[in-house]
Amino acid sequence: MIIDCHGHYTTAPKALETWRNRQVASLGNPGLAPKASELHISDDELRESIEQNQLRLMRERGLDLTIFSPRASFMAHHIGDFAVSSAWAGICNELCYRVSQLFPDHFVPAAMLPQSPGVDPATCIPELVKCVEEYGNVAINLNSDPSGGHWNSPPLSDRSWYPIYEKMVLYDIPAMIHVSTSCNPAFHTTGAHYLNADTTAFMQCLTSDLFKDFPTLRFVIPHGGGAVPYHWGRFRGLAQELKKPLLKDHLLHNIYFDTCVYHQPGIDLLTGVIPVENILFASEMIGAVRGIDPETGHHFDDTKRYIEAAHVDPDERRMIYEGNARRVYPRLDAALKAKGR
Amino acid sequence: MIIDCHGHYTTAPKALETWRNRQVASLGNPGLAPKASELHISDDELRESIEQNQLRLMRERGLDLTIFSPRASFMAHHIGDFAVSSAWAGICNELCYRVSQLFPDHFVPAAMLPQSPGVDPATCIPELVKCVEEYGNVAINLNSDPSGGHWNSPPLSDRSWYPIYEKMVLYDIPAMIHVSTSCNPAFHTTGAHYLNADTTAFMQCLTSDLFKDFPTLRFVIPHGGGAVPYHWGRFRGLAQELKKPLLKDHLLHNIYFDTCVYHQPGIDLLTGVIPVENILFASEMIGAVRGIDPETGHHFDDTKRYIEAAHVDPDERRMIYEGNARRVYPRLDAALKAKGR
Repeated sequence: MIIDCHGHYTTAPKALETWRNRQVASLGNPGLAPKASELHISDDELRESIEQNQLRLMRERGLDLTIFSPRASFMAHHIGDFAVSSAWAGICNELCYRVSQLFPDHFVPAAMLPQSPGVDPATCIPELVKCVEEYGNVAINLNSDPSGGHWNSPPLSDRSWYPIYEKMVLYDIPAMIHVSTSCNPAFHTTGAHYLNADTTAFMQCLTSDLFKDFPTLRFVIPHGGGAVPYHWGRFRGLAQELKKPLLKDHLLHNIYFDTCVYHQPGIDLLTGVIPVENILFASEMIGAVRGIDPETGHHFDDTKRYIEAAHVDPDERRMIYEGNARRVYPRLDAALKAKGR
Repeated sequence: MIIDCHGHYTTAPKALETWRNRQVASLGNPGLAPKASELHISDDELRESIEQNQLRLMRERGLDLTIFSPRASFMAHHIGDFAVSSAWAGICNELCYRVSQLFPDHFVPAAMLPQSPGVDPATCIPELVKCVEEYGNVAINLNSDPSGGHWNSPPLSDRSWYPIYEKMVLYDIPAMIHVSTSCNPAFHTTGAHYLNADTTAFMQCLTSDLFKDFPTLRFVIPHGGGAVPYHWGRFRGLAQELKKPLLKDHLLHNIYFDTCVYHQPGIDLLTGVIPVENILFASEMIGAVRGIDPETGHHFDDTKRYIEAAHVDPDERRMIYEGNARRVYPRLDAALKAKGR
């Protein structure tokens, strides 16, 4: 089985964006905000948006199942206050849940949280609980910079994040550390902010003892870990300067990298440098880079091709495709086993 | 000849830091600020600080010449105002100039600028002119985020930077895009902020047409280009989405990457992905990562070992070591030729 641990609902029907635009237009006038009940998207519309896009490509590429969360760039936690984020997260998570019900063999949901800059992360707990207990979510996406590129939240090791981690440990779910749209003109969203956030998250963990407090907490760092595997020697050296244990002991029981690296040499470096136990197959299609690579004639985000060509043996490839995901997302594993998969 | 294009004076005598501490302590009370003339460092002290450190390692490793600039993390442009940065830049640049005079065969200076957050970059021109015309500097370091991790300056494509670029073009000098200490608790300075800034600078150039306005402008992106080579497919794909030319045409006449990547797989990726014409040898010793890699028994920052082991032919290796630097730093080339080197 091939599990793609990083898919977003980037192809939701237009009505979702229209609703969001109305919500954004109502900022400052909450009385004008649209109600959740004013969003009407039929099952047929959901089916069509998936069948013609993600599911079509999954079938073409031979992927079986996607861990599916709301569109990352649309989370935009910097817009409005907690009430705005809360209504928006509720709607987006419900759509991903409905997709998972319409296509139970192919999509399993992961939740966005109703984060808001300067608001206690603990306010996200009710949405998290609902998504796990009622919607069957197997993971969350945690935005380490809800300001959208102004980086005024404390690092991930700060105790203000701990209520989230306590629930994650309780439910045994991982978090993908994933920022959203940059509203800072210094940072292009998918070309700088995402990758910077990945590198930043890793270093925040490296300098802290977060995983001593939460030995079973698990973070998935997307986009192949940002700059981390390319600079693995630098990070090993920095850990040594900081008198931290070897990275494999200090971080690699808790941190995993996905394979959203869109060329063969990058995947070769990732699989060559990072232990195979810490690599999770992912494509983030249909996402930041949707085109066809003129150098290969294939989609940049068809990452399965790179994994097929990587220097890993068949057992290792199965770990990247399936085994590691079942270990890192135990609720996914349980749901699959309940169906005899 | 082996030219290291990325060296900082990280080993300056303690008196420099003491002077700086006095200056910082005087913030808000300019009358208490130390005068530049109150800093006393003898030639013997300078010689000792270099001979026992950088020059010793250069000899051990077989490096001939270093392009030498003030310590990057000490630039700290976020401290104080323009007058503070101006006094500090003047002192630091003078020390690097004196080092270059004491060791003319081994050190050539590059300048830091007296940048200050929110202050027009054009205010840096007099220091830049002095450093080129009087001190023989062959390059500048340009801090794309003088706030120290708050990222509230406009991107490098903004016209406010153009006065700097006009002088660079006039003098035919490149800029290394190099940030300084992070005062944002989200970002570790050398483990996150530096690498993020490298990625960010590349993407700011990619989304703009800066090099149409300045066809001969040259940026060196340090630390192996941050996350860029590892994600070269992503950047090629993003350029395609944005209807930009191929990266080799859009950016690679103007952007160069150094080799400050502290393990063999990273250098192998860099040299495998980026055209060899765009790679400049560098180590940034004695810098962020000073230890010995337990996996190799050699210093992490002994990057020459990685270049020696990389899959490049002898002509390409000479380009990385010397030829490219002579092309990217024409004033260095001219100074060397004037000495028959």
